[in-house]
Amino acid sequence: MIEPFSSPLLREQLPRYRAFIEAELMPQEMRLLSIPFREAAIELNRLRDKAKVAGLWAPFMSPTDGKPALTLPEFAQLSEWMARTPFGHYVFNCQAPDIGNMELLHRHASEYQRDTYLIPLEAGHIRSCFSMTEPGQAGSNPLQMDTTAVEDDDEWVINGRKWFTTAADGAQFSVVMAITDPEASTHERASLIIVPTDTPGFKLVRNIPVMGEAGEGYHSHGEIQYTDCRVPKRNLIGARGSGFKLAQERLGPGRIHHCMRWIGIAERALELMCQRAVSRSLGRDRLADRDTIRHWIAESRASIDAARYYVLHVAHDIETKGAKASRDGISAIKFHVAKVMLDVLDKAIQVHGALGLTEDTPLSYWYRHERGARIYDGPDEVHKSSLARSILKKYDTGT
Amino acid sequence: MIEPFSSPLLREQLPRYRAFIEAELMPQEMRLLSIPFREAAIELNRLRDKAKVAGLWAPFMSPTDGKPALTLPEFAQLSEWMARTPFGHYVFNCQAPDIGNMELLHRHASEYQRDTYLIPLEAGHIRSCFSMTEPGQAGSNPLQMDTTAVEDDDEWVINGRKWFTTAADGAQFSVVMAITDPEASTHERASLIIVPTDTPGFKLVRNIPVMGEAGEGYHSHGEIQYTDCRVPKRNLIGARGSGFKLAQERLGPGRIHHCMRWIGIAERALELMCQRAVSRSLGRDRLADRDTIRHWIAESRASIDAARYYVLHVAHDIETKGAKASRDGISAIKFHVAKVMLDVLDKAIQVHGALGLTEDTPLSYWYRHERGARIYDGPDEVHKSSLARSILKKYDTGT
Amino acid sequence: MIEPFSSPLLREQLPRYRAFIEAELMPQEMRLLSIPFREAAIELNRLRDKAKVAGLWAPFMSPTDGKPALTLPEFAQLSEWMARTPFGHYVFNCQAPDIGNMELLHRHASEYQRDTYLIPLEAGHIRSCFSMTEPGQAGSNPLQMDTTAVEDDDEWVINGRKWFTTAADGAQFSVVMAITDPEASTHERASLIIVPTDTPGFKLVRNIPVMGEAGEGYHSHGEIQYTDCRVPKRNLIGARGSGFKLAQERLGPGRIHHCMRWIGIAERALELMCQRAVSRSLGRDRLADRDTIRHWIAESRASIDAARYYVLHVAHDIETKGAKASRDGISAIKFHVAKVMLDVLDKAIQVHGALGLTEDTPLSYWYRHERGARIYDGPDEVHKSSLARSILKKYDTGT
Amino acid sequence: MIEPFSSPLLREQLPRYRAFIEAELMPQEMRLLSIPFREAAIELNRLRDKAKVAGLWAPFMSPTDGKPALTLPEFAQLSEWMARTPFGHYVFNCQAPDIGNMELLHRHASEYQRDTYLIPLEAGHIRSCFSMTEPGQAGSNPLQMDTTAVEDDDEWVINGRKWFTTAADGAQFSVVMAITDPEASTHERASLIIVPTDTPGFKLVRNIPVMGEAGEGYHSHGEIQYTDCRVPKRNLIGARGSGFKLAQERLGPGRIHHCMRWIGIAERALELMCQRAVSRSLGRDRLADRDTIRHWIAESRASIDAARYYVLHVAHDIETKGAKASRDGISAIKFHVAKVMLDVLDKAIQVHGALGLTEDTPLSYWYRHERGARIYDGPDEVHKSSLARSILKKYDTGT
Repeated sequence: MIEPFSSPLLREQLPRYRAFIEAELMPQEMRLLSIPFREAAIELNRLRDKAKVAGLWAPFMSPTDGKPALTLPEFAQLSEWMARTPFGHYVFNCQAPDIGNMELLHRHASEYQRDTYLIPLEAGHIRSCFSMTEPGQAGSNPLQMDTTAVEDDDEWVINGRKWFTTAADGAQFSVVMAITDPEASTHERASLIIVPTDTPGFKLVRNIPVMGEAGEGYHSHGEIQYTDCRVPKRNLIGARGSGFKLAQERLGPGRIHHCMRWIGIAERALELMCQRAVSRSLGRDRLADRDTIRHWIAESRASIDAARYYVLHVAHDIETKGAKASRDGISAIKFHVAKVMLDVLDKAIQVHGALGLTEDTPLSYWYRHERGARIYDGPDEVHKSSLARSILKKYDTGT
Repeated sequence: MIEPFSSPLLREQLPRYRAFIEAELMPQEMRLLSIPFREAAIELNRLRDKAKVAGLWAPFMSPTDGKPALTLPEFAQLSEWMARTPFGHYVFNCQAPDIGNMELLHRHASEYQRDTYLIPLEAGHIRSCFSMTEPGQAGSNPLQMDTTAVEDDDEWVINGRKWFTTAADGAQFSVVMAITDPEASTHERASLIIVPTDTPGFKLVRNIPVMGEAGEGYHSHGEIQYTDCRVPKRNLIGARGSGFKLAQERLGPGRIHHCMRWIGIAERALELMCQRAVSRSLGRDRLADRDTIRHWIAESRASIDAARYYVLHVAHDIETKGAKASRDGISAIKFHVAKVMLDVLDKAIQVHGALGLTEDTPLSYWYRHERGARIYDGPDEVHKSSLARSILKKYDTGT
Repeated sequence: MIEPFSSPLLREQLPRYRAFIEAELMPQEMRLLSIPFREAAIELNRLRDKAKVAGLWAPFMSPTDGKPALTLPEFAQLSEWMARTPFGHYVFNCQAPDIGNMELLHRHASEYQRDTYLIPLEAGHIRSCFSMTEPGQAGSNPLQMDTTAVEDDDEWVINGRKWFTTAADGAQFSVVMAITDPEASTHERASLIIVPTDTPGFKLVRNIPVMGEAGEGYHSHGEIQYTDCRVPKRNLIGARGSGFKLAQERLGPGRIHHCMRWIGIAERALELMCQRAVSRSLGRDRLADRDTIRHWIAESRASIDAARYYVLHVAHDIETKGAKASRDGISAIKFHVAKVMLDVLDKAIQVHGALGLTEDTPLSYWYRHERGARIYDGPDEVHKSSLARSILKKYDTGT
Repeated sequence: MIEPFSSPLLREQLPRYRAFIEAELMPQEMRLLSIPFREAAIELNRLRDKAKVAGLWAPFMSPTDGKPALTLPEFAQLSEWMARTPFGHYVFNCQAPDIGNMELLHRHASEYQRDTYLIPLEAGHIRSCFSMTEPGQAGSNPLQMDTTAVEDDDEWVINGRKWFTTAADGAQFSVVMAITDPEASTHERASLIIVPTDTPGFKLVRNIPVMGEAGEGYHSHGEIQYTDCRVPKRNLIGARGSGFKLAQERLGPGRIHHCMRWIGIAERALELMCQRAVSRSLGRDRLADRDTIRHWIAESRASIDAARYYVLHVAHDIETKGAKASRDGISAIKFHVAKVMLDVLDKAIQVHGALGLTEDTPLSYWYRHERGARIYDGPDEVHKSSLARSILKKYDTGT
């Protein structure tokens, strides 16, 4: 727990999560990673049930009133611990993209949407996905979008192609972003619409092989074709034309989730680095006795700690001032923390030698699957440019 | 002000310091840097008087009871602003090494020492220095030391050579670290003793040219020969043999002072970078319109902010748990923040082109004089190794 | 062709290889990578036959007299072009580890070994592997080895475990390094012995999953158990106890092969980066119009070119002075070129965005499979330390 | 000597230069740096006379016929050795900007110019400067220029302001670049004109303080005001309007000179690093026994060697194909080698600790005065962008 982001609630909860993760997940970590997701899901569901029984289910929101039970900085600190092992968030029903969809629906779902989609999602009975990025467009820009939703009687008719729709395979519904009002001002053209995945015209074309793995089920990134896909009008989330605004709103806490997950990964990688360093003999001394390894450990410690404070402060800002006022920080932690995490990961692999390339630790898994951290949700370069633009505004005298 | 490190006191004080710095110091910044210190001192003394009148003098401690008037995190945030300009700390009597000596004497001075040394020091009537590093020894290790102080009647007789004694030139007294008890256990051999600089046997051999400048007065690093230098026994600070302990204690807040100064420098360098970027035309566009420059600005923003949070949290730890319990953080911020500061400085110079090499901005001054940040108080490598050793302890199973 | 490493022979040959690669391999590149090796092998064999017909087979040596037909710098420049696509070396029968084994056997095979193993290997009728690294030992040190070969009548009885034996799966024979003379001086304990893979006691335990892929056939890294594995004495390569010496000798040109392969990969990654940059629109401009992307391209160009000259000069040294005299350069290019290659690869992926993570370009394949470049054949850190030791020798005055 | 850039001539000459530098310059190195240039000049002139007597004067050209006595790659390798110590080039009359002016005049001087300016310059009787960069313009672009030269009868009347005119203080003439034909096409507007520094209207406004030092004499960078400065028409070098072309031509070999100087500096810094590493005790071991220091040494070795090969190949290209065909390489080595040199320098300082900041080694001098390497002759960013533009041309399909 990080002073001054500690709280009585967190001091009580965090040790319980840590204990559960240590006792229940860690022993199975590498085995669950080594089998296809659908197989792993059987054991994961057993663990989810255990988590429910232990009162550790979906800690970020209380289902009754939609008010988060934990503040964002509090949840962030739990989230870091869940991130120590690849299935951590999943076991507590805190996994992206479901967590983002739950947050979205909590704030904006109609009663119908709540009953039909949110409640079973919170219960962990179904999964969902979020369909925004398009193959022909820069992933980062929800304003450039070809997918359309056209009114026809009391239905939306959706056409378009999306990709990198995480966890589409096996999801019961997708939240799709589509242009509903092409003539409106740029930020008011798109809407978010719920599309059950068994709707005719919804087609999961493929799970995109990412870093050599197409994956399956929750562990996949889908390419989806929407062809004359019809859903009732009541599937529109919030107001017509509010898609961009809602996506932005979804993004703030989502960024915190991602960044704390990266910090959790980096922290675990550092732990593995230390364990390896003390256990690997080099003849007369150990890796741990070597300067270079020590410096990597020290540099990793410092970078991770600085990054964690940074994220928690941005989380505090979002909590107290809202996502809009925290925009600069939200951009900055994206590229700053992704870099820290990938650097630590790379060092951890190097310390492990050939072992670091195998599936005997989660390092190789993260190395492959977290390279995307610098790309998903807009490449680092886009975030850097937009942050700089915002900073330069106050220096700009209108030239 | 940084939430959650803000406070009513800070919210009231910080704007007053910022205003004073902006109005009084900034307009004279480059001129004062371009003249010899003794000349600049005339104007600086005028500014010091103004600061006293404005109630901005030595904010880190209340002279009456020795209790700091500001917490360490509060002072840290003032300190960052003072660091925007090379003479900032000096004007408010917060400059190293005097600030460290004042903190030391506040806690450990006898009444005699308080009256004779501390009070005029706090009033800004005299200056002091701290004589620890020796030419033949690694600067970072107060345990390897050749300087001795031997009892002779009611005097200490000091012999040895010290260097990089900052601001010795013009100081009224030195606090010297010397071996008094060579047979004691390693950490109890040294003591701190006050040596007035007019004591026979005290000789300022030279101001060491650092990065081509020997400097003078406050702006210098002295090499000092102590030859049968006799001072009364009452000049011993605290207990005999406590030199190492007191130096460590002095170091905790001292590290915060240094790191916040570096952050202030980095912040100013970033500001200069932004000002240059919007004002430098490249024909059709400006530096500010170039990706590369934008990315440097964004990366600098993120690194500085992460570093600042880190330092403030370590300051908070020192304040609430003491320097000993905060040892890892104190080591880590040293190398972490020094790197951030030097990186930002380097980028700022590059954005300025040839102008960045001239004396038209403070960048060139800092480039030369702050390279030592990675060396003084122990090179980064020593801090990294010692931090790693501390981290690895808990993984170590006794090898 | 690189002046002054050009030659009439190279000027004639290189365009023929480039044309063959462009016309025959490139169109099938991604398809062949996306299917299991055994399937791909059918098409690859067809291409190998074509290469033979075209007179492009195994250019690095003339089978009749064992004298290389091309100098090492000449072959190095062909090798770079073969490396543009993952199966390039394979199609021309220049793939590691077979190329190393052929070089070894050319120099040291008995007539029996030549007829039985070298000739079919050169003809591409069989494949081979090289079994050195052991799971319990640092991969880099052939001196620390547990595998033994004990004489029993006219046989060697081999026991031990090896891993990261590349391409063991489907190989007809292994060249195994084993301790034959445990009492000899450190560098004369090991020998190289040929073990047909159908020998009782030779067991391919598994293809080690590397970066998530166990692979198969040529595309795999095996873990092998040798249990009372008996081979005739005539399977010893060269003199008894010469294993370490022969392995070192094999290493020199082998390092050149690896480094030129990495340069070929980097060069292709840069080409992909450029193609992407000009084809990706960002609205009003293209990636190619952005400073950051341009700087990545320029920095990549410079790093690759400097690295290539470096490798060619070391190749020239090996050719003219031998591997021993070139030891420093051989160490240095290992870590220097691996870093350049991985940096360029990382930039190329970033320029491609999400596409860079998919299997639509070879970038993701190389990202996963070439991370090992900093680990295989001894981690970078070992090479750096040993190079430094060698450099420091001349400064060392015997402390 | 670098194979294959060795030659009988170089094998004979290089050892003689090395011996002279070692015996004559090195012992005085730090003393000469510590005194004002005009004082140092007395001793330097004595050394210059010695160099003449030893037949080591101005080796890059034979005065009689203007044909370089050494090829560019040959001279480059001498130049590296001269760069080991700050006054090396000066002692052999190979110092910039005189060397560039001599090359220029060799090719383009009229008989009058040769007799009046070139011959005494080659003899070392006078010094010169090159006046191109202007304070209001990006230093890198000779096309954006405010200085004009207008015909008036048989004179040129020059007006304008130049800065960073190296070694203007004490020079007998300046070669100034001025717009003579504002209506011509962009590359044909400027001309090069010789201006004796005692011409009325030529005013050395100041020596610009660079990194805190204004310097004097050869060791300075001047700001010059040309006010109705009249020189005879015969002072025009080459054809009217050829200024840009001649400046480009001057730049190719000039770049090689700079880069080899940087490599010489880096090489010396590495040597100092090694000497320090073996001599600095850390108690039980030495700096040289530490991994980190070793890795710095190894990385420096590799980077310097790769960079040197790179520069020599570009020199070879300029020699054999001309500067225009070598343009990409000329751009690339600028930023590549500057980075390598500054990195090695920084490591060398760190290894020296506080000593590295003092004037006891040349490291601190270089740290201050070579930071400009990334700025002078156009900042790195300009060279990277222009190199990338050139690379991207062949990928560009006209979008």
